[in-house]
Amino acid sequence: MLSKSQIKLITSLDKKKYRNKHQLFVVEGIKSIEEFLYSDYELYLLFSVGDIYKNKDVISTFITEAELKKISFLSSPNSALAVFKIPESKPIGNDRLIVALDGISDPGNLGTIIRLCDWFGIKDLICSSNTVDCFNPKVVQSSMGSLTRVNITYLDLEDHLINRQDELIYGAFMNGESIYSSSVENKGILVFGNESNGIREEIEELVTSRISIPQFGQDRKTESLNVAMATAIMLSEFTRRTIEK
Amino acid sequence: MLSKSQIKLITSLDKKKYRNKHQLFVVEGIKSIEEFLYSDYELYLLFSVGDIYKNKDVISTFITEAELKKISFLSSPNSALAVFKIPESKPIGNDRLIVALDGISDPGNLGTIIRLCDWFGIKDLICSSNTVDCFNPKVVQSSMGSLTRVNITYLDLEDHLINRQDELIYGAFMNGESIYSSSVENKGILVFGNESNGIREEIEELVTSRISIPQFGQDRKTESLNVAMATAIMLSEFTRRTIEK
Repeated sequence: MLSKSQIKLITSLDKKKYRNKHQLFVVEGIKSIEEFLYSDYELYLLFSVGDIYKNKDVISTFITEAELKKISFLSSPNSALAVFKIPESKPIGNDRLIVALDGISDPGNLGTIIRLCDWFGIKDLICSSNTVDCFNPKVVQSSMGSLTRVNITYLDLEDHLINRQDELIYGAFMNGESIYSSSVENKGILVFGNESNGIREEIEELVTSRISIPQFGQDRKTESLNVAMATAIMLSEFTRRTIEK
Repeated sequence: MLSKSQIKLITSLDKKKYRNKHQLFVVEGIKSIEEFLYSDYELYLLFSVGDIYKNKDVISTFITEAELKKISFLSSPNSALAVFKIPESKPIGNDRLIVALDGISDPGNLGTIIRLCDWFGIKDLICSSNTVDCFNPKVVQSSMGSLTRVNITYLDLEDHLINRQDELIYGAFMNGESIYSSSVENKGILVFGNESNGIREEIEELVTSRISIPQFGQDRKTESLNVAMATAIMLSEFTRRTIEK
């Protein structure tokens, strides 16, 4: 059974303003919820259609499909919905490669980038304050549990990079040195920019190494690679070099 | 001015059945339409809100925003909509790497894979007959003009691979040899499978080299990489090896 105030609270959580106010966010789908249950995240509410969590160490409130539809952000709700507390950021490491995002605005791209960080063992993702919120329901959905394994910090990216000027700061550009021939190390900071406008000028000035993915199509008319694809290829290159050393 | 029969025709083209019947498909957005105009594709109808194509060698029918909304498949229509003829497939090359898709079902994934093929100079993409149609409006949208530069052929993938048994047939699996340490050549065929079920058994039997992208996250709980991400990383590896030779 779902109370009116619960419906109001949960549906408000698609907005960053209310996520911040309540320090809560929504996770949907049995698999994703399980990943959060077995992580450091603290459960606040759990609803399920039927006794999905019978053998787990959690208590879920049974609701109907119709009730789930009322609180779900998905067009086809997936049997369970949970609300978790937004955790405090952990300190940012500095002994290995960190990914930095300067104004990524598409939730699907951020979710994919979080999955890629998880896949390639990147522990820290830092985001400029205008990057889409990682607790946005679409980001949570597309990151598929990887959010539980990557430490994400929102900060003033310019200030942060100024304070780390003694480190390597790589920037992904359309016109940098080829990632295949440039000497990269699996540490420092690797910056990706906004989908339309790329990396801001003030951040660009702090970059110590401009890198790019060369295009092999003969007529070279192709639009730039989507930022998530560029992240996939660059993280693959950075990690490959490390294991080959 | 838009006629009733034009509206009926265009809106029917979101279905494969009607695209096949009329041998027509829709392209939306000024930039994408331009890429098709300057390709081998043959224009059938062109509509624009205002005189966008004034200085181009084409004639567009002016329509209102409200009319565009009636025929557009986008939630925010983008000033122009064109209908092009579906071209005949060109012969498939065999002197360089071909990408093969076994049952890709998500239009966004196919569109992204087409963009990646274009970026990495892959001329031929072959698709099992149950792969989503490349003239699906969402595929056209997400491939962003790259469709004009990649030759896509739908065929019986099993039959086709049986006929090419003397070539290298790479398959992307979760449990293959690491792409970083396996010796790959930039020719042969590289097969990717369906988003949920991977490569079908009958195709798997024809694969001569199983490759995969190793996971670096410490606890290795991450879901498999999305197929478009896997394609990005693998195509990057195949082309890198070629230029380093």
